[in-house]
Amino acid sequence: MNPRVGIIMGSKSDLPIMQEAADALKELGVAYELTVVSAHRTPHRMMEYAESARSRGLQVIIAGAGGAAHLPGMVASLTTLPVIGVPVKSSNSIDGWDSVLSILQMPGGIPVATVALNGGKNAGILAAEIIGSTNAIIAQNLQKYKDSLRDKVIESLKDL
Amino acid sequence: MNPRVGIIMGSKSDLPIMQEAADALKELGVAYELTVVSAHRTPHRMMEYAESARSRGLQVIIAGAGGAAHLPGMVASLTTLPVIGVPVKSSNSIDGWDSVLSILQMPGGIPVATVALNGGKNAGILAAEIIGSTNAIIAQNLQKYKDSLRDKVIESLKDL
Amino acid sequence: MNPRVGIIMGSKSDLPIMQEAADALKELGVAYELTVVSAHRTPHRMMEYAESARSRGLQVIIAGAGGAAHLPGMVASLTTLPVIGVPVKSSNSIDGWDSVLSILQMPGGIPVATVALNGGKNAGILAAEIIGSTNAIIAQNLQKYKDSLRDKVIESLKDL
Amino acid sequence: MNPRVGIIMGSKSDLPIMQEAADALKELGVAYELTVVSAHRTPHRMMEYAESARSRGLQVIIAGAGGAAHLPGMVASLTTLPVIGVPVKSSNSIDGWDSVLSILQMPGGIPVATVALNGGKNAGILAAEIIGSTNAIIAQNLQKYKDSLRDKVIESLKDL
Amino acid sequence: MNPRVGIIMGSKSDLPIMQEAADALKELGVAYELTVVSAHRTPHRMMEYAESARSRGLQVIIAGAGGAAHLPGMVASLTTLPVIGVPVKSSNSIDGWDSVLSILQMPGGIPVATVALNGGKNAGILAAEIIGSTNAIIAQNLQKYKDSLRDKVIESLKDL
Amino acid sequence: MNPRVGIIMGSKSDLPIMQEAADALKELGVAYELTVVSAHRTPHRMMEYAESARSRGLQVIIAGAGGAAHLPGMVASLTTLPVIGVPVKSSNSIDGWDSVLSILQMPGGIPVATVALNGGKNAGILAAEIIGSTNAIIAQNLQKYKDSLRDKVIESLKDL
Amino acid sequence: MNPRVGIIMGSKSDLPIMQEAADALKELGVAYELTVVSAHRTPHRMMEYAESARSRGLQVIIAGAGGAAHLPGMVASLTTLPVIGVPVKSSNSIDGWDSVLSILQMPGGIPVATVALNGGKNAGILAAEIIGSTNAIIAQNLQKYKDSLRDKVIESLKDL
Amino acid sequence: MNPRVGIIMGSKSDLPIMQEAADALKELGVAYELTVVSAHRTPHRMMEYAESARSRGLQVIIAGAGGAAHLPGMVASLTTLPVIGVPVKSSNSIDGWDSVLSILQMPGGIPVATVALNGGKNAGILAAEIIGSTNAIIAQNLQKYKDSLRDKVIESLKDL
Repeated sequence: MNPRVGIIMGSKSDLPIMQEAADALKELGVAYELTVVSAHRTPHRMMEYAESARSRGLQVIIAGAGGAAHLPGMVASLTTLPVIGVPVKSSNSIDGWDSVLSILQMPGGIPVATVALNGGKNAGILAAEIIGSTNAIIAQNLQKYKDSLRDKVIESLKDL
Repeated sequence: MNPRVGIIMGSKSDLPIMQEAADALKELGVAYELTVVSAHRTPHRMMEYAESARSRGLQVIIAGAGGAAHLPGMVASLTTLPVIGVPVKSSNSIDGWDSVLSILQMPGGIPVATVALNGGKNAGILAAEIIGSTNAIIAQNLQKYKDSLRDKVIESLKDL
Repeated sequence: MNPRVGIIMGSKSDLPIMQEAADALKELGVAYELTVVSAHRTPHRMMEYAESARSRGLQVIIAGAGGAAHLPGMVASLTTLPVIGVPVKSSNSIDGWDSVLSILQMPGGIPVATVALNGGKNAGILAAEIIGSTNAIIAQNLQKYKDSLRDKVIESLKDL
Repeated sequence: MNPRVGIIMGSKSDLPIMQEAADALKELGVAYELTVVSAHRTPHRMMEYAESARSRGLQVIIAGAGGAAHLPGMVASLTTLPVIGVPVKSSNSIDGWDSVLSILQMPGGIPVATVALNGGKNAGILAAEIIGSTNAIIAQNLQKYKDSLRDKVIESLKDL
Repeated sequence: MNPRVGIIMGSKSDLPIMQEAADALKELGVAYELTVVSAHRTPHRMMEYAESARSRGLQVIIAGAGGAAHLPGMVASLTTLPVIGVPVKSSNSIDGWDSVLSILQMPGGIPVATVALNGGKNAGILAAEIIGSTNAIIAQNLQKYKDSLRDKVIESLKDL
Repeated sequence: MNPRVGIIMGSKSDLPIMQEAADALKELGVAYELTVVSAHRTPHRMMEYAESARSRGLQVIIAGAGGAAHLPGMVASLTTLPVIGVPVKSSNSIDGWDSVLSILQMPGGIPVATVALNGGKNAGILAAEIIGSTNAIIAQNLQKYKDSLRDKVIESLKDL
Repeated sequence: MNPRVGIIMGSKSDLPIMQEAADALKELGVAYELTVVSAHRTPHRMMEYAESARSRGLQVIIAGAGGAAHLPGMVASLTTLPVIGVPVKSSNSIDGWDSVLSILQMPGGIPVATVALNGGKNAGILAAEIIGSTNAIIAQNLQKYKDSLRDKVIESLKDL
Repeated sequence: MNPRVGIIMGSKSDLPIMQEAADALKELGVAYELTVVSAHRTPHRMMEYAESARSRGLQVIIAGAGGAAHLPGMVASLTTLPVIGVPVKSSNSIDGWDSVLSILQMPGGIPVATVALNGGKNAGILAAEIIGSTNAIIAQNLQKYKDSLRDKVIESLKDL
């Protein structure tokens, strides 16, 4: 199955967070690819990745980065696919504010769909929702997942 | 043409920002509907809106609100459609931080695709990108829009 | 004795903080109930809980949640009982600012009585004060508690 | 009718915000008194006000102040009545953060029920909810007010 | 020797920070007293302490507290002696901002001389500087201390 | 009468705030001098000013500056007199946080007595309190001033 | 004279701030060029600009942008010339924090020399200092400028 | 080889961060010197260091400090050489905001080239870039370093 979602991250140190996106997609039945693309260390690779994404069959890109996080916004400037940005709280981050603001506050014309700090899991679910907006099977998987969230809360009441 | 994007806002005072989403969708050829749904003043209406959205044919919901902005996150908890959140800087807001954080920082399982503070326009474009991820005409419109952004920069150089 | 205070929390992981509310109420002689109600994972359960609270005899609701904390505000939108909100500093929180602001900054018309970050204990005392405003026994218990705070300071001077 | 709610403010310049509390109480049928009590300029007057409040028949105190806002917390330390704190954004405030944090972040044992920045109106409604928790008429007035909030949203849809 | 500086703190848990003030004063030859005075748990004791301070021979008061830190400002409202405020980063503090802002942002008319977060040592030195402004011996001690700071830097260069 | 308090500011644009310090000192009967000393534009002048201050008879220095405000801290490093720092909210300031933090957060050994943002008036009063700690006349003036603050509150109640 | 400094900005709306850089360079005798290069709207133009900068004879690049400001960091990733970043406070900025943090907090390996918010003038001076570090004439001009800053302070004392 | 870059720090405790600047310079073939110069504890030493820097052959100064970090800005006021400021997150820092803002927000006329919080490494690279702007060998070393950053990313893909 061709990947529909491309997961990229600015540094391999972001993998623990971004793997959660991959795990969520797997659970929801969405094929994905995952790699490292650094805006600052591999700008040409970033350009190629973003500009070829649609023609390679991707429908959504998830990009995670920390600090002055330029990867999600730059990728969004190079494709018309929806780009989901994951702010990662890296080691020298100022409490995560830097990555949150440099992903979220994009200028008019180039949106990035930003999720919570370290929100790799939600990025995966959001990508599935985007695909599920026209795909009945993924939509069903999402509904089952939603139901399971509710059921787990109810289950947890037993030992309270 | 049936609306594919539902634009809702917590208060009519959010209209100037949310109209920018509508204008962007119109420019990009995406049919939409627009109304007021308040999480705090009309919680039942919100539930009905969110739970019927998919069956009514919507593919994306854009929800804008200010202050302790619960509308986007609550709608996201009630549908499997992708929900785009627009933080609005309302009058008694603490510099917009309240709406940004109460939309962005959703818990694992229930993502909201957050755009910049007062980013109504980008919410519209993002919704079009989501639809354009499987719709060639909208994708083409987005590419034309992207090209026009570039051309306007080049044009602006003349009078520098 | 029927519970007069309902303590709810968005996730079982909030229990260590919310148990402090329960402990304070117990010490002050106020009957309570405690359970998990998630705005985002169990929205229908939340609606039922909030809308039935008054008729079930509750006089105050204490709601604690972290991150984009919508539970206190949504419950407040569904009942005319006073709702006390406890911002919980959860694991991916941005230093607690997200839960503080998404509970505190409610729009005009739907107040939430917000206490300090992780202030479960104070939520319990505040609930007792609300009941004590018309109940002489609870008022007396509160006065004794206040006196004991003072006495402990005086006591602590001995080993300085 | 004896006042049940005492509204106090640190400075007469806080009156525009605090008058909204008075107006809300009036609309909801709750008798109140309103005066200026400064923690820093009239500390003895503050002590007398707080310590006599319960015996004078008050059930709730609403205290508003700006900057390093000590009035709500100090009053709370001197009475067992519930104290509602209103952070006021004064002229030299650092964006309101100072009054919000110095009212909200009370230590364990002495809660202040904090409302939103400049949230005078919500302070009034919260005081009515506290009284309405045991008073059926006020509870009814609150339900009517809540219904009117909903109806105004529905009404506003007409001219959209 | 009668104490010239009164060191007070809101809670015994502030002692590690406030002891640094005492140590600095001792090193600089200034007699002091040290005790716990809580604005919120012992408001009457606070009043007595502040109002009797000058007549008891104190020349400066150092007051440390965390969270919504009202002790320094309230003491300043009750005496004409200079009051030095020490913001303490307590356990549930929001990164120390709460104590900093609730001590620093005093309204016009009632100053508090605020030092850095956890700046107990500097509070002690500042108190000595105040006394040294008219006392030649303390001034000399301060100059020696200043010289030693410089000498320690020069000394540290040796092992670089 | 020789000046006892030296008021300096980093730029003439700080004068409206720093004049309030001068006015307060005048009202309280304390002689002062006032001039511009820029840490960044006149570092040698700053050194001379600070190092000669005590021998010229000054007892306190008040230093105001905006943005990256180094004047108060640098003066404090060059004298053993108490230095009061006034954070000024200048035009390109980030909401005043820059001047507040660069004045307040001095390292151990070199305290600055920081007052509120734009707190020129309080700086003047604090300087008077420092002088009044050993001067009975100034102490009396301070008490009268404090009484007048209280009386003005009482007076203001009449037209409420 | 060939330009040695390239001034670029993300949008023509940044011109008022960036013109100050140009004016400073002109005053200091450094030839410059100035144009608009948008990271998000003209990414290919940005790449060409940055990658050709050194061979075209530029020695320093000054890049200004607002919001999620990616231009300075992306240019720095594409050249080995020193890049000076100017955070611009744009209209929907969250008080300038977004542009400051997305320019300043670059990851290890790709520095941006960041100046103050809206600090166009200082960017120009810093560029001149970089050139003046090996160019005696520019160094002399900088010393004259520095002297003039001092002289203007001294001059301003006359009308105090 | 005479040092071209002077690395100074406010305290020996800043060495772990500032050593990264030295290491980067060494790797890039730039001679440097490294010492401790405290703005607050050794102000005269700071003056001498800064005022003699150019004549001693330095081309760039890197200055690191924490808290109310005045060293970079004061050195910049005393030389026309480019000064790179490194905000260091010291122990009692308020999350690093204090050092960032007191280094970054310099007034017009006296720039400091600020790098990221704890960005010692980037300070070293930036200094090399400044020297490399007119030195072909250093420029080449920088290009090799940049290439190695890219190659390491590509290399890291193998074990993904």
